[in-house]
Amino acid sequence: MGRKSDGRERLLEAAAALLAQRPYSSIGVAEICAVAGVQKGSFYYFFPSKQALALAVIDEHWVWQRSEWLKALEAPGTLQERLHSLFVATSDIQVASLTGSGSVTGCLFGNLALELSSQDEPVRERLQGIFEEQIDLVEHAIREGVDAGEVAVIDPREAARSIVAQLEGLVLFAKLFNDPGQIDRLWQNSLSLLGLATPAAV
Amino acid sequence: MGRKSDGRERLLEAAAALLAQRPYSSIGVAEICAVAGVQKGSFYYFFPSKQALALAVIDEHWVWQRSEWLKALEAPGTLQERLHSLFVATSDIQVASLTGSGSVTGCLFGNLALELSSQDEPVRERLQGIFEEQIDLVEHAIREGVDAGEVAVIDPREAARSIVAQLEGLVLFAKLFNDPGQIDRLWQNSLSLLGLATPAAV
Repeated sequence: MGRKSDGRERLLEAAAALLAQRPYSSIGVAEICAVAGVQKGSFYYFFPSKQALALAVIDEHWVWQRSEWLKALEAPGTLQERLHSLFVATSDIQVASLTGSGSVTGCLFGNLALELSSQDEPVRERLQGIFEEQIDLVEHAIREGVDAGEVAVIDPREAARSIVAQLEGLVLFAKLFNDPGQIDRLWQNSLSLLGLATPAAV
Repeated sequence: MGRKSDGRERLLEAAAALLAQRPYSSIGVAEICAVAGVQKGSFYYFFPSKQALALAVIDEHWVWQRSEWLKALEAPGTLQERLHSLFVATSDIQVASLTGSGSVTGCLFGNLALELSSQDEPVRERLQGIFEEQIDLVEHAIREGVDAGEVAVIDPREAARSIVAQLEGLVLFAKLFNDPGQIDRLWQNSLSLLGLATPAAV
């Protein structure tokens, strides 16, 4: 792949690649610069701090992931089919990471949430906002399902929060067991959070 | 609190306290020794490596947490009551961490699973074993519920896996939002993973 001429873009790519493999705390500015092929002196021209770079990586990842979520959740079909697409998209990302790097990288947001929540307030706030947006997207789909008479949900927001929490829990298992199949096997059970289906396991 | 005479015990306590606040990668042997009041030279008398200490912290935490889980899951009462006790116990631990330190520390195992799964095989294997044991405990309770005619579950193991994944997802939210109430609010929804209750949200 050709080297991009934009140092900022290269730093973002390098940081994202390193964060997929290792914890934030273990990655230094010097290493990010080395991977990006950017002089360390130039780093601070693009970003005032490693934290600022991390926030930019988070934002860029969310722009991409949000479009994936919208593709799944705004596709034609029933609520059940659209939620299934969301689980498949989530699983596919983990399969791709396993194929590409030999290990399931998990969810960037979940990884950073557990690593940094108690020590980095700006990162925590950004991640809170993203998870709330994820819940918004699922809630919107659930409300459409309610309007279509597919499901009777009293509190679509809390139901959406359960679905997103379940998804994060499943991605944690996929990473721990290095097995994206953890997500596929359990998605039917997750549907039962909506009373949408008799889950496979019960 | 009096200082324990046993250096090994003090190192374990110091490492557990530091791990509750910060990522593993950001904590060095020198800092653990300083907090424990143990000479750095003595560290390697007790543990061959930082990883060996981490594994010992994990084992010690699981001995304690396992007894808490057994208390909840082997208490008299219905499956629903026993699962509720498990969620309350999980929530109580996060409330205690918030009261004690000002921040929700999350789950030691979940934190380390996301931080280290792709880079530390012995830690990953130990955590896999612990999560499988957690699933065993919940599965056992579900089977008792089935025997008592409280619930009709086709695959108690997968149902148990869903419950443990949901619990991890909720603890992630509790940590991210620094709010143990995230666990309380959603536990009714989690019950629906078993088809046990019409969840509060649906």
